[in-house]
Amino acid sequence: MLDSGITAIAYETLRDAKGTLPLLTPMSEVAGRMSIQEGAKYLERPQEGRGILLAGVPGVAPAEVAILGGGIVGSNAAKVAAGLGANVRIPRYQPRPPPLHLDDIMPPNVTTLYSDRHTIRETIERADLVIGAILITGARAPRLVRREDLTRMKHGGCDRSTVAIDQGGCVETSRPTTHRNPTYVVDGVVHYCVTNMPGAVGRTSTYALCNVTLPYVLQLANRGWRSVAAAYPGFAEGVNIDHGHVTNHAVADTFGLPFSALNTNPPTGRA
Amino acid sequence: MLDSGITAIAYETLRDAKGTLPLLTPMSEVAGRMSIQEGAKYLERPQEGRGILLAGVPGVAPAEVAILGGGIVGSNAAKVAAGLGANVRIPRYQPRPPPLHLDDIMPPNVTTLYSDRHTIRETIERADLVIGAILITGARAPRLVRREDLTRMKHGGCDRSTVAIDQGGCVETSRPTTHRNPTYVVDGVVHYCVTNMPGAVGRTSTYALCNVTLPYVLQLANRGWRSVAAAYPGFAEGVNIDHGHVTNHAVADTFGLPFSALNTNPPTGRA
Amino acid sequence: MLDSGITAIAYETLRDAKGTLPLLTPMSEVAGRMSIQEGAKYLERPQEGRGILLAGVPGVAPAEVAILGGGIVGSNAAKVAAGLGANVRIPRYQPRPPPLHLDDIMPPNVTTLYSDRHTIRETIERADLVIGAILITGARAPRLVRREDLTRMKHGGCDRSTVAIDQGGCVETSRPTTHRNPTYVVDGVVHYCVTNMPGAVGRTSTYALCNVTLPYVLQLANRGWRSVAAAYPGFAEGVNIDHGHVTNHAVADTFGLPFSALNTNPPTGRA
Amino acid sequence: MLDSGITAIAYETLRDAKGTLPLLTPMSEVAGRMSIQEGAKYLERPQEGRGILLAGVPGVAPAEVAILGGGIVGSNAAKVAAGLGANVRIPRYQPRPPPLHLDDIMPPNVTTLYSDRHTIRETIERADLVIGAILITGARAPRLVRREDLTRMKHGGCDRSTVAIDQGGCVETSRPTTHRNPTYVVDGVVHYCVTNMPGAVGRTSTYALCNVTLPYVLQLANRGWRSVAAAYPGFAEGVNIDHGHVTNHAVADTFGLPFSALNTNPPTGRA
Amino acid sequence: MLDSGITAIAYETLRDAKGTLPLLTPMSEVAGRMSIQEGAKYLERPQEGRGILLAGVPGVAPAEVAILGGGIVGSNAAKVAAGLGANVRIPRYQPRPPPLHLDDIMPPNVTTLYSDRHTIRETIERADLVIGAILITGARAPRLVRREDLTRMKHGGCDRSTVAIDQGGCVETSRPTTHRNPTYVVDGVVHYCVTNMPGAVGRTSTYALCNVTLPYVLQLANRGWRSVAAAYPGFAEGVNIDHGHVTNHAVADTFGLPFSALNTNPPTGRA
Amino acid sequence: MLDSGITAIAYETLRDAKGTLPLLTPMSEVAGRMSIQEGAKYLERPQEGRGILLAGVPGVAPAEVAILGGGIVGSNAAKVAAGLGANVRIPRYQPRPPPLHLDDIMPPNVTTLYSDRHTIRETIERADLVIGAILITGARAPRLVRREDLTRMKHGGCDRSTVAIDQGGCVETSRPTTHRNPTYVVDGVVHYCVTNMPGAVGRTSTYALCNVTLPYVLQLANRGWRSVAAAYPGFAEGVNIDHGHVTNHAVADTFGLPFSALNTNPPTGRA
Repeated sequence: MLDSGITAIAYETLRDAKGTLPLLTPMSEVAGRMSIQEGAKYLERPQEGRGILLAGVPGVAPAEVAILGGGIVGSNAAKVAAGLGANVRIPRYQPRPPPLHLDDIMPPNVTTLYSDRHTIRETIERADLVIGAILITGARAPRLVRREDLTRMKHGGCDRSTVAIDQGGCVETSRPTTHRNPTYVVDGVVHYCVTNMPGAVGRTSTYALCNVTLPYVLQLANRGWRSVAAAYPGFAEGVNIDHGHVTNHAVADTFGLPFSALNTNPPTGRA
Repeated sequence: MLDSGITAIAYETLRDAKGTLPLLTPMSEVAGRMSIQEGAKYLERPQEGRGILLAGVPGVAPAEVAILGGGIVGSNAAKVAAGLGANVRIPRYQPRPPPLHLDDIMPPNVTTLYSDRHTIRETIERADLVIGAILITGARAPRLVRREDLTRMKHGGCDRSTVAIDQGGCVETSRPTTHRNPTYVVDGVVHYCVTNMPGAVGRTSTYALCNVTLPYVLQLANRGWRSVAAAYPGFAEGVNIDHGHVTNHAVADTFGLPFSALNTNPPTGRA
Repeated sequence: MLDSGITAIAYETLRDAKGTLPLLTPMSEVAGRMSIQEGAKYLERPQEGRGILLAGVPGVAPAEVAILGGGIVGSNAAKVAAGLGANVRIPRYQPRPPPLHLDDIMPPNVTTLYSDRHTIRETIERADLVIGAILITGARAPRLVRREDLTRMKHGGCDRSTVAIDQGGCVETSRPTTHRNPTYVVDGVVHYCVTNMPGAVGRTSTYALCNVTLPYVLQLANRGWRSVAAAYPGFAEGVNIDHGHVTNHAVADTFGLPFSALNTNPPTGRA
Repeated sequence: MLDSGITAIAYETLRDAKGTLPLLTPMSEVAGRMSIQEGAKYLERPQEGRGILLAGVPGVAPAEVAILGGGIVGSNAAKVAAGLGANVRIPRYQPRPPPLHLDDIMPPNVTTLYSDRHTIRETIERADLVIGAILITGARAPRLVRREDLTRMKHGGCDRSTVAIDQGGCVETSRPTTHRNPTYVVDGVVHYCVTNMPGAVGRTSTYALCNVTLPYVLQLANRGWRSVAAAYPGFAEGVNIDHGHVTNHAVADTFGLPFSALNTNPPTGRA
Repeated sequence: MLDSGITAIAYETLRDAKGTLPLLTPMSEVAGRMSIQEGAKYLERPQEGRGILLAGVPGVAPAEVAILGGGIVGSNAAKVAAGLGANVRIPRYQPRPPPLHLDDIMPPNVTTLYSDRHTIRETIERADLVIGAILITGARAPRLVRREDLTRMKHGGCDRSTVAIDQGGCVETSRPTTHRNPTYVVDGVVHYCVTNMPGAVGRTSTYALCNVTLPYVLQLANRGWRSVAAAYPGFAEGVNIDHGHVTNHAVADTFGLPFSALNTNPPTGRA
Repeated sequence: MLDSGITAIAYETLRDAKGTLPLLTPMSEVAGRMSIQEGAKYLERPQEGRGILLAGVPGVAPAEVAILGGGIVGSNAAKVAAGLGANVRIPRYQPRPPPLHLDDIMPPNVTTLYSDRHTIRETIERADLVIGAILITGARAPRLVRREDLTRMKHGGCDRSTVAIDQGGCVETSRPTTHRNPTYVVDGVVHYCVTNMPGAVGRTSTYALCNVTLPYVLQLANRGWRSVAAAYPGFAEGVNIDHGHVTNHAVADTFGLPFSALNTNPPTGRA
C-alpha cells in the first residue's frame, strides 16, 4: 500500500469533535441489536440450546439476559432484549462515573448494575444468555467472564446450557468465528463470536454506514482532504497513510515502519 | 387404540366454558412469539434472506411485518415484532366484528386493518416479513395469500426476497416443514412452515402446556373423568374414545368408524 | 337486629350480573395499591426492615416483589410495584385457566407464573417483599406460604429480613393486626397483616366505596328494594335480613337461625 | 432607532454558552407541536383536505407524516404526531453525525432516516402530511422539497391531496402566509406556511417565552447589560445597537451601516 | 318508502350478540378522536379561543381536558388527548358499576372519576376543553352540563373562554351545527356541536364503516336476509321495513304507523 | 485532625470533569426516590395525614404532588411519584435556561413549569404533597416556600393537611429531623425533614455509594493521591487537608484556619 502512493483514510481511527469514533457507531448498533436475535436462535433446541423461548409466554418466565457493558453495543442489545420481553441486567464497566443514566431511557425490565467482580458473577449465574459488549478503543478488553464463571451458568440437567455472545473479547473462552461456522461449545456453553456480525444484514448495515460516511465524503470532495484534516484534528487521526508515509503512530508501531507527522498544508501546486 | 379399551381424551378438542380451545392457547402463544425470531433469522443473508435487520438502527428503517390474523398467534407475533421495533400491520380476518380491539393493548407501531383482499395484497407488497396466523378450528384456513401475491413482494434486485411464515395454512404455496429442514424457496421467497414450532423451545413449551393442563388433571384425579364430563360439556368434547367406542363425531367420520354418544353416567360399580 | 324488624342489605354478599362482588372491588383496589407502600416502608431499617429501597437506584437493583394471586388485590399491587420500579413476579392461583392475561396490560417488569408449589417456593426465596393476595369468596384461602418457606427468604446476615403482607390469609404464620400495632416478626420476617387496610386512607376509600354504592342506592330509593331484588337476583343475594327473618343461607347457618326464602313480591299495601 | 440612542438587544441573535439560540427555543417548540394540529385540520374535507383522520381508527391506518428535520421544531412535531397515533418518518438533515439519537426518546411509531435526496423523495411520496422543519441559523434553508416532489404525493383521485407545512423554507413552493389567510394550493397540495404560528396560541407562547427571558432580564436589572455582556460572550452577540452604533456585523452589513465593535467596559461615571 | 315495497335495514338499530350497536362503533371512534383535534383548533386565538396550545410546551402546562363519558366516544377522545400531552379527566356516567376499567389501558395522564354532580362541576371548572360524550341508545342524554356550569369555566380575562364539544346532547346549551357553521358562542364559551363529525374525514370514515358492514353484506348476499334475521335476533332488530310493513316498534310509534312482527320464514317460492 | 497529620479527602467537595459532585449523586437519587414513599406514608391517617392514597384508585383521583426543583433529587422523586400514578408538577428553579428537558424522559403525568413566585404558590395550593428538592452547592437554598404558602394548602376540613418533605431547606418552616422523630406539624402541615434519609435504606445506599467511590479508590491505590490530584483538578478540590495544612478555601474560612495551596508534586522520596 505504501508503494502505491495512495492516501489512506481509515474508518476505525477517525474521531469526531467529542473524541468518539463516529464511523464505528452504526456497526455497533447493528451488532448490539443483532446479538439478541442470534441469542434467541441459539437458545432453541435444534440450534443446540436449552429450548427456551427468550420472550417467555404468559405464565412462563422469559429468559434472563446479562449484558456486560452499557455502551453502544450494550444499550442496543438491551433495548431489543427488553422489547422482546426478557429480563435484562447490565453490569456496566465504567472507569469513571457514568455520564448518562441508561435508566432514564430504558424500559423497566432493564436493570443497570455496577460492574464489579461479585456482580458480574452473580449476574452470569442467573442468566440464560450472556452478551459480552465491552469494546475499549485501542485496547484489549478486560477478561470479565472467566472460564470458571461459565461452568456456574444454568444447565438444568442439560449437556448444553446458555449462550454467550461476545463482541469485544471480554469472555475468556471466546475465539473469533464466522457466519459459516458461527458457534462452538465450551463446558456446555454455546459460544457465538462472529467477528463481522453486521455482514449478515448487509442491506441494513450498508445504509447505516453510508449515513455516517456520506457527510465526510462530501467534505472531502468539496474541500480536499488536507483542508478537512487541517480544520478537524479528529479527521486527521483517520489519515493513516499519506503518499507512502505512515502518518498514524499505532500503525507505524504495529508494523515497525517509520512514522511521519501528517502535513495538512497542501503541497505547492496541488489540492 | 379402540381395542386397548382405553379412554382417550384429546387436548385439541377439549373446550372451555366460552367455547375456546384452552389447551391449544399456550402453543399458539409460543408459535406466535417464536415466528418473529424465526423471521428475523431468515432475513439474514447467511440464512438466504435479503440481509435486513428486523429492528433497523437509528437512521435506517426497521422491517415492515405483515401479520395475517389477530388471534392468539397473531397478537403474540405482533407484540414481539413491535417490541423489536418493526412496523407491524395486522389485516385481521374476521367473520364477525371484533370482540376486542387489539389497538387498546398494542404499542403504537402496530396498525390493525380490515382483512379484505385489497388490504391483504397491499400489506404483503410492502412487507419484508409475512406471518400467516389464521387458524380456524376444524376447518381449512382460507387461502389469503396467493402465489401471485408473493411475486409482488419486495425483491430489491435480490434473488431471495422476503420471508413467509405460515402457522395456519393461509399461504397458497405453504407446505409443512420440520426443524431439520425448516425452509424452502418459492418464487424467490423463503418459506418457513415448521408444523411443530414449539418443539424447538421445549422447556418453555412444556411449562406453558402444564400450566393449563394441570387443573384438568387435578379434577380428573379427584372426581373421575365421567363426573367432570357430566359437569362441563366442553370437557366432554375432549373425550374421543370411551372403552373402545368413538365418542367424537369428527373422529368417527374421518376414520369411518361407528359413533357412540358419550355416556357420562358412571357405570354401576365403578367411578 | 332481627328484633328491630329492619331489612339488612350486606355489601359483602351482593353480586352483580357476572357473579362478582362489586361492592368489595374498591376496597381490594385500595388494599392492593396500599400494600406496596406499606411494604416499601417496612423494608426501611427504622421500621425493622433490611434497609432496602424498593425502587433501587441506577446501578443498584430494585427489590424483588412476589405477589401471590392475580385478582383485584394482586393486579393493583403489581401495577404500583412495577411503577415504583420493582421486579414483580405473580404466581397466580387459578382453579381454571385465566379469563384474562395480565400480561397484556402490565408493564414489562411484571412476570406472571403458574402458581404451583414449586414456583411459589422459588418465587418467595428470591423475594424481598411477599404480598399474599388470595381471597376466595366464602372460603378459607389455601395456605400457599408455609412457615418453612419464610425461613428460606433472603436474610443477608440480618436478623430481620423480608416483609410479608397478607390480605387473604394464604400465609401460614399470618394473624390479624391493626393500624395501631401493624406488624410482628416470625422467624426474622416482618409480618404486616392489618385487616382494615383501607381505613388508613379513609378519604380515598370513602370516595371509592360511594362510587360503586351510589347507583344501588339510587335504584333502591327510586324503585324500592323488593323491586330491585326481583329484577336482579345478584342484588337479592345481598339481602340478609327481611323483617326479622334471615334470608341468607350462610348467615342462617353460621348463627344457627332459621332460614326464610326471600319474598320479592311487595306485601299488600306497601312498596 | 440609531438616532434614539437606545441600546437594542435582539432575542434572535443572543446565544448561550453552547452556541444555541435559547430565546428561539420555546417558539420552535410551539411551532413544532402546533404544526401537527394544523396539519390534522387541513386533512379534513371542509378545510380542503382529502378527508383523512390523522389518528386513524382501529381497522383503518393512521396518516403517514413526514417531518423534514429532527431539531427542536421537528422533534416536537414528531412527539405530537406520534402521540396522536400517526406513523412518523423523520429524514434528518445533518451536516454532521447526530449528537443525540432521537430514537432513544421517541415512541416506536417514529422512524428516523438519513436525509439524502432519495430518502426524502420516497418519504414524501408515501406521506399524507409533510412538515418542513429545517431552520439553519443565519442561512437560507436548503430546498429539500421540490415542486416535482409534491406532484408525486398521494392524490387518491382527489383534486386536493396532502398538506405541506413549512417552518423553515425548505419547500420550493412555500411562501409566507398569515393566520388570516393561512393556506394556498399548488399542484393540488394544500400549503400552510404561517410565519408567526405561535401567535395563534399567545397565552401558551407568552409564558414559554417569559420562562427563558426572565433569567436574562433579572441579570440585566441586577448587573447592568455591559457587565453581563462582558461575562457572557453569547449575550454580547445579542446586543445589536449601542448608543447609536451598530454592534452586530450581520445587521451592519444588511443595512449598509458602519459597524462598531461592542465595548463592554462601562463608560466612566455610569453603569 | 313503504309504498316502494323495499326491505329496509337500518344501521343504527342493528345489534350484535352482546346487544351493542356494532355499526355505530366506527363513527363513535372517529367522532371521539376528531373531537380533540377540533377542540385544539378552537383553543387557538384566530378561531376565537383563548390562545392555548393543547399540548403545552416544556415549562408551560398543557390544557386540562374534561371528557364526560367513558364509552367509545369518550375513551377514543381520551386516548388522543392524552397522546397530545393534555391532562385528561373522565367523569364517567354509569348506571351500573363499570364492566371494564379504562385505567388499565389508558396512559397515566388520564384520570377516571365517578360522574356525580359535584365531580362534574369541579372537573368542568378546571377544564380548558370539555367534551360531551354521553350517548344513551334510544334515549335523550341527561343534561350533565348546565348553563350555570359553563359560566364558571376559566375565562382568564378573556371574552372567549373554553370550548365545549358535544356529541350526545349532555350540554344544556348545545344545539346542532354543521361543518359550514360549526361553532357559536354562549356566555363566552365556544360551542362546537357538529352532528355529522365523521363527514369531515370521509375517507377514514368510509373505510371504518365498510369494515364493520361488509361481513353483514356478505352474509346477506350468501344466505338471504330472512335467513340471517332468523339466525341472529340482533340482526332482525335492524330490519325496519319489510315489503311495506313497519317491523320496528320505535319507528312505528314515531310515525304513527301500524306495526307488523317480522316474519323470518321465507315466503313460498322466494329467498 | 490537623494534628494527626492525615490527608483528608472529602466526598462532598470532590468534583468531576464537568464540575458536578459525583459522590453526592447516589445519595440524591436515594433521597429523591425515598421522599415519595415517605410522603405516601404520611398521607395515611394513622401517620397524621389526611387519609389519601397517593396512587388513587379507578374513579378516585390520585394525589397531586408538587416537586420544587428538577435536579437529581427532583427528577428521581418525579419518576417514582409518576410511577405510582400521582399527578406531578415540577416548578424548576433555574438560574439559566435548562440544559436538558425533563419532558423528554418523564412519563406524561409529569408536567414541568417555570419556577417563578406565582407558579410556586399556585402549585403548592393544589398539592397534597410538596417535595422541596432544591440543593445549591455551597449556598443556602432560596426560601421558595413561605409559611404563608403552607396555610393555603388543602385542608379539607381536617386539622392535619398535606405533607412537606424538604431535602434542601427551601421551605421556610423546615428544620432538621431524624429517623427517630421524623416529623413535626406547623400550621396543620406535617413536615418531614430527615437530614440523612439514605440511612434508612442503608443496604441500597451503601451499594450506590460504593459504585461511584470505587473507581476513585482504585486510582488512589494504583497511582497515589498526589498523582491523581495533579491529573484531575476536580479531584484536587476534594483534598481538604494535607499533612496538617488546610488546602480547601471554604474549610479554612469556616474554621478561621490558615489556607495552604495544594502541592500536587510528590515530596522527595515518597509517593
